[in-house]
Amino acid sequence: MQGTNHDDLRRHNLSIILRLVHRSGAASRAQLTRLTGLNRSTIGALVAELSERGLVEERTPDPTKLAGRPSPIVAASDRVVAIAVNPEIDAITVGVVALSGVVHRRIRFATPTSPTAAEAVHIAAGIVAELSSELTEYSIIGIGVAVPGLVQASDGLVRNAPHLGWVDEPLSDLLAAATGLPVVAANDASLGVTAERYFGAGAGMTDLIYLNGGSSGIGGGLVVGGVAAGGRAGYAGEFGHTRVSGSSHTDSAGIAGTLEAEVSRDALLAVLGLPSSETDADALQSALLTSDHPAVRAEVNRQLDFLAVALAGAVNVLNPQLIVLGGFLAALHAVDPDRLDRAVAALTLDAAFADVSIRPAILGSNLLMIGAAELVFEALLLDPQSDRGNTAAILPLTL
Amino acid sequence: MQGTNHDDLRRHNLSIILRLVHRSGAASRAQLTRLTGLNRSTIGALVAELSERGLVEERTPDPTKLAGRPSPIVAASDRVVAIAVNPEIDAITVGVVALSGVVHRRIRFATPTSPTAAEAVHIAAGIVAELSSELTEYSIIGIGVAVPGLVQASDGLVRNAPHLGWVDEPLSDLLAAATGLPVVAANDASLGVTAERYFGAGAGMTDLIYLNGGSSGIGGGLVVGGVAAGGRAGYAGEFGHTRVSGSSHTDSAGIAGTLEAEVSRDALLAVLGLPSSETDADALQSALLTSDHPAVRAEVNRQLDFLAVALAGAVNVLNPQLIVLGGFLAALHAVDPDRLDRAVAALTLDAAFADVSIRPAILGSNLLMIGAAELVFEALLLDPQSDRGNTAAILPLTL
Repeated sequence: MQGTNHDDLRRHNLSIILRLVHRSGAASRAQLTRLTGLNRSTIGALVAELSERGLVEERTPDPTKLAGRPSPIVAASDRVVAIAVNPEIDAITVGVVALSGVVHRRIRFATPTSPTAAEAVHIAAGIVAELSSELTEYSIIGIGVAVPGLVQASDGLVRNAPHLGWVDEPLSDLLAAATGLPVVAANDASLGVTAERYFGAGAGMTDLIYLNGGSSGIGGGLVVGGVAAGGRAGYAGEFGHTRVSGSSHTDSAGIAGTLEAEVSRDALLAVLGLPSSETDADALQSALLTSDHPAVRAEVNRQLDFLAVALAGAVNVLNPQLIVLGGFLAALHAVDPDRLDRAVAALTLDAAFADVSIRPAILGSNLLMIGAAELVFEALLLDPQSDRGNTAAILPLTL
Repeated sequence: MQGTNHDDLRRHNLSIILRLVHRSGAASRAQLTRLTGLNRSTIGALVAELSERGLVEERTPDPTKLAGRPSPIVAASDRVVAIAVNPEIDAITVGVVALSGVVHRRIRFATPTSPTAAEAVHIAAGIVAELSSELTEYSIIGIGVAVPGLVQASDGLVRNAPHLGWVDEPLSDLLAAATGLPVVAANDASLGVTAERYFGAGAGMTDLIYLNGGSSGIGGGLVVGGVAAGGRAGYAGEFGHTRVSGSSHTDSAGIAGTLEAEVSRDALLAVLGLPSSETDADALQSALLTSDHPAVRAEVNRQLDFLAVALAGAVNVLNPQLIVLGGFLAALHAVDPDRLDRAVAALTLDAAFADVSIRPAILGSNLLMIGAAELVFEALLLDPQSDRGNTAAILPLTL
């Protein structure tokens, strides 16, 4: 436990202001005064420092729309950006996300085969170099990587990404060496919950769960008591391995009767007769919603009932306000939200069920970009006076 | 998000010092300087204020044991106390716990039948009045209640305590009216995890789970990322209702195939041929450890394997460092810890299993007293300048 001195105090207050405008959008100085309880002159000095560092911009609101003297609007910068990287079995996606929340770019680089870690680093570094030479008026403060697997929180080591076939790959170190930028990595689904929490369906909530269903299985993340819960080493949120049946079907980790073994995108595609490679989440959802074949509905019901067992366990243990479903789980939910609600209600305590709602994710294709960028912004938000906060001094990267 | 001004700063630093000596035991001023990063004169002023308020005591260490000038030892007060109350189906237990951690008293008042909420309040208030007239040199700052049921965090309403048969009982308000003291209430198992976290098997840990097995079922609590996780309304930790089998046995909430339905103290007592009312946790554990009857061992193995399913789910979702088992679950664990470890390992990801250890609770019969008192101390630790922190001005209670 650390005490606080006067330097800490200023850093703390800078952090609070920057976090407010980053997470809640632009705010007037008057709103910042009210929200923080700090006085007007303190707010003025803090905003001035953030502005000098290039982290916020002050804009004068349209005077024709306001009575009285308008208070300037303080907004997080569009020019301070993080690069988001998401390696998958068939593509590397790279995005440019501003501190203001704007996603400036998203580039999907298809790979003919599942990339090795070295290939993913090579491709990502090439795209970063190209982006850096284009974005000369932007300050790139770091790279965030969303990994479909277990990532050790302390150093970004990818312990195990089963679908990519990566084991103990020092991805962060390799990408940092290749780009010269600081790199932070985390599990993709845990970044999904961060993104939905701050900018999506869970905005303002303190207790939520996110489950994502993809071609490579089911992962998730959780926010508990306002804290993004990574667990001891960053592996929390592996809802896919929750036991939901006594069956002998095994999942990617070889565990029998789990959510991932019973509930899968492949089984839905098979019963619909659709090809895996050409069916994205939206196409799957419309096919499920328009099909009137009894076998399709039976498979949907079977999967919804198993999903309910895993969700009910999470409701009993975590008493969340919200469960957000992404990927093919959102498509399943869309077919029959009432069935899922009823099945969860039957397996939970009434008081805990009364607190929770189950909803689809809303950030769509930008979800992981926003989540991975947030990983980079977090260090800056904690300490706007850090090196990363001296964006005025960071030259645009040229490789 | 609130900013910090200079008054907040002093309150924050007082809070840090008081928390350190409360949670980690007595410390010298030199240690406090090192642990907090604050300078010696600031520490001196903060300790002086806490001492004036009666919250800490300064003692001179034994000079014969030290070289050089001894630094005075700062210790949390033995005289500032909270009263802990734990209503159960056959007794009301009341304890007096000091800010220093000492449990001064523990009184178990047996009731012939399961008490109503009004009876529990009447009995507890009577004991509090008696204690107050004895403890004339102590400052009683409040009452913490450990309830075997769901307690609404916002106002201490007991939503549902199934074994006591209480539904929507305003227990905190009734007890506050009867005693004139501030009252805070929470679920017993969530207080158990708080106690083990600060003063027991989980000392210093940020990610732990506690499961307690009692005559009235299985409850639990969790600490996630350093935060005691109550969930949206304080109902988190209901591990007893986790689905672990496809059987039709139902638990106290009417849910089939749950941990509580499959794993129970009554089933162990039945196979041992022991009476429920006269067998405490220690007696159950020795009976299990000394029995060589195959039917006993078969029942223990059956229960350990179902316990493993629930623990594995928690390990996959929460990636904890530690699982603490209390009550009859500790007795089950003592019979064959290796079997439980192996069964959990088979159902979890290797990396997450590698992080966790499974251990018995160590605080024993003082567990809930310490946990319930901590509920009262928490407000004082957050703000030592609050009314509750003016202990010098609180007269001993006389009713």
